[in-house]
Formats: sequence, C-alpha cells, structure tokens
Amino acid sequence: MNMKMKNRMAAAYRLVNQTSTNNNIHHHHHGCRLIIPNFNRSSSSSGFTHHCASVSLNQFSASYCQKLSSIHIQNLSAIHHRKFGSVASTIVQRNPRFSTINNDDLIHFEKILGPKKVIQDHEELETANTDWMHKYKGSSKLMLQPENTTELSQILEYCNSRRLAVVPQGGNTGLVGGSVPVFDEIIINTRRMNNIISFDEVSGVLVCEAGCILENLISFLDKQGFIMPLDLGAKGSCQIGGNISTNAGGLRLVRYGSLHGTVLGLEVVLANGSVIDMLGTLRKDNTGYDLKHLFIGSEGSLGIITKVSILTPPKLSAVNIAFLACEDYISCQKLLFQAKRRLGEILSAFEFLDAQAMNLVLHHLDGVRNPLPSSIYNFYVLIETTGSNELNDKEKLKAFLFHAMESGLVSDGALAQDFSQASSFWHIREGISEALMKAGAVYKYDLAIPVDKMYDLVEEMRTRLGDAANVVGYGHLGDGNLHLNVSAPKYDDDILAQIEPFVYEWTSRHHGSISAEHGLGLMKAEKIYYNKSSETVQLMASIKKLWDPNGILNPYKVIPSSLVS
Amino acid sequence: MNMKMKNRMAAAYRLVNQTSTNNNIHHHHHGCRLIIPNFNRSSSSSGFTHHCASVSLNQFSASYCQKLSSIHIQNLSAIHHRKFGSVASTIVQRNPRFSTINNDDLIHFEKILGPKKVIQDHEELETANTDWMHKYKGSSKLMLQPENTTELSQILEYCNSRRLAVVPQGGNTGLVGGSVPVFDEIIINTRRMNNIISFDEVSGVLVCEAGCILENLISFLDKQGFIMPLDLGAKGSCQIGGNISTNAGGLRLVRYGSLHGTVLGLEVVLANGSVIDMLGTLRKDNTGYDLKHLFIGSEGSLGIITKVSILTPPKLSAVNIAFLACEDYISCQKLLFQAKRRLGEILSAFEFLDAQAMNLVLHHLDGVRNPLPSSIYNFYVLIETTGSNELNDKEKLKAFLFHAMESGLVSDGALAQDFSQASSFWHIREGISEALMKAGAVYKYDLAIPVDKMYDLVEEMRTRLGDAANVVGYGHLGDGNLHLNVSAPKYDDDILAQIEPFVYEWTSRHHGSISAEHGLGLMKAEKIYYNKSSETVQLMASIKKLWDPNGILNPYKVIPSSLVS
Repeated sequence: MNMKMKNRMAAAYRLVNQTSTNNNIHHHHHGCRLIIPNFNRSSSSSGFTHHCASVSLNQFSASYCQKLSSIHIQNLSAIHHRKFGSVASTIVQRNPRFSTINNDDLIHFEKILGPKKVIQDHEELETANTDWMHKYKGSSKLMLQPENTTELSQILEYCNSRRLAVVPQGGNTGLVGGSVPVFDEIIINTRRMNNIISFDEVSGVLVCEAGCILENLISFLDKQGFIMPLDLGAKGSCQIGGNISTNAGGLRLVRYGSLHGTVLGLEVVLANGSVIDMLGTLRKDNTGYDLKHLFIGSEGSLGIITKVSILTPPKLSAVNIAFLACEDYISCQKLLFQAKRRLGEILSAFEFLDAQAMNLVLHHLDGVRNPLPSSIYNFYVLIETTGSNELNDKEKLKAFLFHAMESGLVSDGALAQDFSQASSFWHIREGISEALMKAGAVYKYDLAIPVDKMYDLVEEMRTRLGDAANVVGYGHLGDGNLHLNVSAPKYDDDILAQIEPFVYEWTSRHHGSISAEHGLGLMKAEKIYYNKSSETVQLMASIKKLWDPNGILNPYKVIPSSLVS
Repeated sequence: MNMKMKNRMAAAYRLVNQTSTNNNIHHHHHGCRLIIPNFNRSSSSSGFTHHCASVSLNQFSASYCQKLSSIHIQNLSAIHHRKFGSVASTIVQRNPRFSTINNDDLIHFEKILGPKKVIQDHEELETANTDWMHKYKGSSKLMLQPENTTELSQILEYCNSRRLAVVPQGGNTGLVGGSVPVFDEIIINTRRMNNIISFDEVSGVLVCEAGCILENLISFLDKQGFIMPLDLGAKGSCQIGGNISTNAGGLRLVRYGSLHGTVLGLEVVLANGSVIDMLGTLRKDNTGYDLKHLFIGSEGSLGIITKVSILTPPKLSAVNIAFLACEDYISCQKLLFQAKRRLGEILSAFEFLDAQAMNLVLHHLDGVRNPLPSSIYNFYVLIETTGSNELNDKEKLKAFLFHAMESGLVSDGALAQDFSQASSFWHIREGISEALMKAGAVYKYDLAIPVDKMYDLVEEMRTRLGDAANVVGYGHLGDGNLHLNVSAPKYDDDILAQIEPFVYEWTSRHHGSISAEHGLGLMKAEKIYYNKSSETVQLMASIKKLWDPNGILNPYKVIPSSLVS
C-alpha cells in the first residue's frame, strides 16, 4: 500500500469516526434537517470530500422498525393499483363440474356458523371479490367466516360433498390473483380465527391461529422482546396463514431464512374436511415425512391453514444502515461477498439499485435528497446490520466500509447517524416503485436469478428496447431477488412484445425463478413450465388430485388447469 | 443493588478481564499444562474464589473445528457398538410381493453398470448388510454402485418393473436401521456419485452429487472460506445425500437451522426411475409446491437423492467457549433465554448436562478434569459463540457472563483461553456417552421436548427407577433436544419395563418427539403414532403409495408396514 493510499485510508477512518461530532449542522426546512455524514472516494487530491446532505426529520416513532414499515405499506398500496395495467388478463373457463350455491346450501352454512358469519352483503362481497391491485375480480355470492377449525372443517366437508369450489382468503394482499375468486367460488375468510394460543419465551415459539394479522403478532412479540422472522409491507392487513400459504419472503429473509426454516408446525384442514394436526413446537422432530412443507407456498390449493407454530428470533437493539456507491455490478457482487464474510452474523439487509432507479427517485419523489450528491454512480447498495451491541456493530461496519473503500469496491458512502437518516436511506430504496409509477407506464417483474447473472438481464433488456423505454434494475441482492422494471411513456403492445416472453425465457435459461416471492396464483399458473420440469409439475398435480380429488380448493390457481380438471 | 453485590460484581469483572494475564501459570505433566481461568460465585466472604484447573495440552490441529470433530467421531463410533443392546429387535415379515434376484437380473445390471459396479463379493456385502451399531443385519446378495443419475434411474426403473425391493445406502452411519436391508433388498450405494458440481462464492451455494462425504465437502468449503451448515460426528463417513434423506441435525442446528432451511434444491430419482430435477440454487422461488421437502427426512422411502444444492454460511474466525455451573434447571432455562437475547447473533451452541453426567465423566474418563472443581453443581452449561470479531465477541460473552453471575443464574464458570481449553470443555460434554458405556448397561433415548418440561422427564424417571439405575440427562438445550440415558449395572427386563413405553408415552403427552434427529428407520417405524396423528400418518402413506405403488423403496422403514403393503 503506497503512502497516498495510506493517507486516504486515514482520512476515511477519521471521517467515519468523527463526522457525527464534527458535522452536525442543523437548520430548518419543513421541520428540522439533519446531517448525513458521508465519505467519498473521489479523484480529488485528498481522495475524500465531505458533503452535507439534508433530509427532513420525520416524527420519531416509538420503534425504528415500525417507522420503516409504515413507509413500506404506503408504497405497496400505491403499487397495487397500477402495476399490472399492461398485463392481459388470463383466460380460464369455469369448471362445469362445480355446483352453484342454492338455498339449501345457505341454510346449511347458517346452521354451521350462525347468520353473522354467512356474508351475502353486496358491498362486503364487492371488496372480497376484488384483489388489492384491482386487477382480478371474481363474482362470488357468498363469503363464510368460520371462527375456529371445527367450523372450517364442517364447511369444507360440506363443500366437498356438494362440489362447491372455495377460495381461501386471508388479508387479500396477494399480488398474483391467488386470494380472490375467479368465478363464483365461495370465499372462506379466516379473519375471525385470530387468537394467539401460546408463546414460550425460552424457546421463542409462538402458536397462533391463521387469521392473526402479521402486525398484531409483531406488536405482541415486541412486548416480549421478540420479532417475527418475516416482515413485509402489507403487514397491517396480511394474515400469518396467508403469509405461510404464499411462503412470503419479505425484508428479513437474508437474515432469518425462509418460512420453511422458521415454521415449526401447522394445523391444516383438507378439502374433505379432515383436520391434520401437525402443530408441533419443536426445532427437531425426525419422525416421518415433514408434510407441513407441502402447505407452505401451495397458496391454499392443498388445504387451508388454521393454526401456526413459528420460531421467533429475539429482538436485537442495534441497527445500523450504510448507503454506498459502486462503479460497476461486479463491485456490488464483491461487496456482498465481503459483507457476508466481514459482517457475517449481523448482516440483515443487502439491497441494490442502479443509476436509473436513483435518477427516477430523485426526479419524481418530493423531499428525497441524494445522500452522495457529488455524482450519480452506476450502482448503489444499502446495507443494514442488526445486532445486540451498538458499539461493536458500528465498529464492525466501519471497519468493513473502510476496507471496502481501500480495496476500491466502494466509491462513496454514508453511514446513518440516527433513525431519521436511516429512514431516509431506506426511503430511497423503498421509493423506487412509487417513482416508477409517477414516471409513466411500468412493466414489473419479480425474479430470482443467480447473483452473478442477475444484472445481465437488465443490460440485455436495455439493448432490446433501446430508446423506447427506460429499464430499471433494483432489488434484494442479498437474496438474489431482482425487481426488473421497464418504464415507458404509456402502455404499448410493441414494448410488451419485446419484453415477454423474452424475460421468462431468459430467466428460465439461467435457472432463475419467474416468481421469487409472490407465488403463481392465477396470473402465472400457466407459466409454471418456465420454472419447473414437466415431471415436477406432474408430481405436484398428482398430490393435488390425491388430496383434493374434486379440485374444490382454490381452483384455476398454481397448477395448469389442464392437469387437474 | 447493595454494596456487597457491587463488590462481587467488580471482583467478577476484574477476574473476567484479568485472568488471562494474572493467572497464566504453566507447569508440565504429560506434556504442557495450561491454566483454565474461572470465576466462582460461592458463599466465601469475597464472593469469588480463584481456581487453577489444569488440562493436558493436546497437539494443536490446524483448525479448532477439525479437532473437535475428531473427538465427536471417536465417541460416536464407540456408542454405536453398544447403545442398543437392550432393545428387542423389531419383528417384520418379508413382503411376499417382492421378487428375488435371478440370473437375468444380474445380467441386466451388468449391462447397465458394467461388472465392477455390481457387487456380489461376500465380504463387501457382509459390511454393507450390517449397520454401524451391529444391531441390524440384512441378507442382501447384491450391491449396486451407480456412478451417475442415469445409471441409478435405469436401475430403479428395472427394479420397479421386476418388483425387486431396494435399500438406498450412503455412508451407512444411521442409528435406526434405516440404511441396511431387512431381508434381501438390493443395496444401492451412492458412494461413486461423489463429484462437486459447482460452488458460487458470492451466493455461497454449493451443488454436488449425493455421494459426497460430508467431511470432504467441509474441507472443500474451508479452502473457499465457507462452512457446511451442518456438522456431525459421523462426517468422515456419512454422505450428504444420506444427511438430507435423514434430515440430520448435528452440531450447528441452533445457529444455522435445519436442512429444510438450507437445502435449496435436489435432484431425485423416483421408484419408477423418473428423474425429478428440483436442483434450484435460488434462495427465493415461489413457483408451486416445494416438493423437495418431502425428500428431506423421508429416509429414502420416496425417492433416492442424486444431487444436492445447499446454502453454505461464510466461515467466521472467532470462537469462544464458556463452561458454567447452575444450581437448578430453571436457571439453565433462564440462562438460555438470556443467551439468546444478549449473545443473539453469535450464539452457536448451548449444551447442558446434569450432575450425574458430570460425575460419570469425571469417574470413568481418563484425563478429564473438572473446570469448576470447588463443588459438584446440579447443572452445567456449555456455551459457544462464533462470530467475525474475536475482541467484540469476547467482550459480549464476558458482559453476558458478568450479568448472569450478577443475577444469580450462574454459580461458577470458566472461559476457555485457547483451543486446548475449549477442546477440554467440549470433551466433557462429548465424553458423556463414552462414560455411560464404561459405567455398565445403558438405555438411550434421543428426544425433543419443550424446554420448560424437558427435565421433568429425567426427574420422573428417577422417581420410577429409584436405586435400580442412575438416570442421566444432557443434550442440546438450545435445540430442545434431550439425551435421556438410564445407566444400570446390567441389562434387565424389569428396568426396561419401567422405562418403556413410559418414556414414549410421556414424550407424546408433552408434545415432544420420540426421534429428535435420528429418524424412524426400522427401529421406530411402528412407534410413529407416539408422534403423529393417524390422519397425518395416513397422508404420509397416501404419498408413499402414490409415488412408489410397488413399495420397492426402503421397505419396512418409516411407515408402519400395515399401511403400505
């Protein structure tokens, strides 16, 4: 290492350690502004420049996490109303083997549930028939709201005997049309099954009913000093049963893994009404096939989840966020590699966005300032750490950043000094969707692709589309999850034809997933072969036919109709 | 806090921070002895006493982990020859629907594989017919060693058409008779399928063939700076395909979770020879039922795993070990609760043993010294942390221990100062099995029980048995995994009648598992109802019959024979 580099490193180190005391200039605009100290490896003679970027200070909420999540929710609900404007609706035929509801059925359901839980009200049905994005709309005449497993079991047993199709519905926040009827399926809504059954603070195991709203579980656990192993924007509405049925990914997957690792047990009701008790609370249990995994991610097509046992991690107090700039995608990859090694056990998020995404956010969202304003870099990375010791974690992160700058992986960066700054960094990442919608028409794809290949797709798409559209890449790099977005002045079939089926074919060819976290639902049921071999799909269908021979559970979803009807 | 407590805390703090410099007295005996500094919350006036316990300094191995694992292997292989001496062999009848091998079959197999991979040698078959414990012995006349998926597929297709039963065999290190024939099943050994296919150092995803020996994968990854997410005593022999087929738990589960979380993809051959490609390498993929989970832990009864994709964590450099004493079981539980909270992200093991276990080790194993010799305490806890920063982690652990002593949860404790001390602490925990065998006859049970109830079983067993036997409890408290052992002068049917079926009934009544990590195999196939409802077992059997209608894959195992023959 030459002298100049040594000086740079020393300067960087001072900066990292001193900015919070040296640079805390406060001034006022829409409330209070705070400094984001940052460090910048530029071509200037000192190697580093100091910037003062200001962001408006939002009200401090009780918890940093709660604050972030409120941002997520706002963005997400905004997405839902616009994101699929360009996608042609899937054409399916009503399965003629299904019966239609008659008066005897209604009398029977009222006998099981009482009148209050048998819903025929037009307005309530209108809402329940419509998905969150207003893309899919069914024409169900009946919603049932069982209050417990027994009631739900009796409903399904009857529906199965009568060949009445049903759609299980939790918070109805899904993005692929999985939670609303396609035709006149009976909606079985689990919202009344919302009791917390037990929590063991030694093991961290929570047992609850499927209709518990995720945010309520998070609040409950917060008081016990624990967190849910998953968190997502829709948490104010989505239910844990639906989360598990769709194998929701969310914000904590890179740290706590998927629900296949954290869900310890389930109670499920099959199409014929049998109640399958797999509600174990043990981390270790090797006594036969672990059937619960079949219900995790099967989108209610094999059974309806009624109770859940889940391992919850303890809440850790120290959260740190860094916002970094990289010159190229290979540096982003190397940075991820280094972060996994050097931040190891405290790494809790590793997100990336490209220059196109950053420009959109800066141009279309109010009040967003670039934390690294000296230049627009090709890539930005947001790193979050979560640990049990604020001081240790900060030191670890600073040492990591120092090393990353020394080795040239990072060109510039800023470390959040408080909740507000952390929130403003997250807001850039989370604001991309909103910015895209403000920019015009947008074609959205949620893909998982091996990390080393991921950005090639973005570049190939740019080549294909030329000046016709703005191609934007961002997502959960730590999970290998790319959000590929094509922004255009208006929806245009020529543009769509350039994108599809190319995007699915490319993803398939590179062993990626055409649905990283949203599931297949109605939207992608027929696209399953881009991801799975026909043998695998046949095996799926064989289980579906075995356990739901009349096909009453969430028909037209997940599996190509030709295989199960 | 009163003055006396303050002084105690101050003394403890000094001790924790200064022992390594103040107390490093070296003297020689069987080589070099090192000091284990410890801290002791006793009733003496100062509140703390200093001890010098010495242990012989073993040769330093290149890696601490490698060293520990060699201990595991020695103990485990010693167990295998004695542990099941008391258990009556399971009685099953050969299924008359299965064919027996004839000359045409041999000619056909030689045509598929060539002569070298068709084994009829008496000695080789003797070994392959016998399980590691020398408890189960089959009478197979034929072992096939396919070299790739195609060969294995052709074998199974043929066996299925001929109704020739097969037993898949990896390293043959299972503990429940799952990997050896019961009668004349053809042994399909996967040892020749041992290629590493790819490793991605950015994502940490390893893809390899099922016959790779675990230790070889660990060595391979070590060079890349990664580890396998599982580690176990049998690693020198066991194969990754067998690990996944049995859903092996092992030493790292408390930190990295089960294989259901870390296995990303599988290639599997079904009974009819069809190759199911589910060999994804993605952390996120929500495109239909995640069928691979059915093969994780199904002990080769649904298909034979041929290729594996697994997420491997980066290797972290800092390992710390503490050996602690607790007065009662409730303190152990509280300590676990605190450890999860305060050590959070760095906790990698939380093991416990009772006074009976400690006494056995001290009396029966040579060269083992009590690290806390002032007294025999009721319970001992071994805590291991693994992280990326030695100094930070040590500080975190010391602060945790200081707090645990202050609050009275821990009565005495020692923190390992080097590899050798760490190894000696682990040796106490790992030496229990060997000590039990030296003590006489032993009845062993591997149970998962909710942590708060776990030790009640040990105490109830003591009450039942009185002076007739010595009841010993230890295990992976962090995973809720109890190793319940009953030590007696000799095997005695009266003692066995006091233990079984009580131990299974008790475990079942408290929602525990009768096989935490070993599986069911032949030994416990008929005991499945202690753990699973009849509806769940029926569902298991329905899938078995669907995908293996002739029942040729690993018959007599996992599922009660009456359901599938």
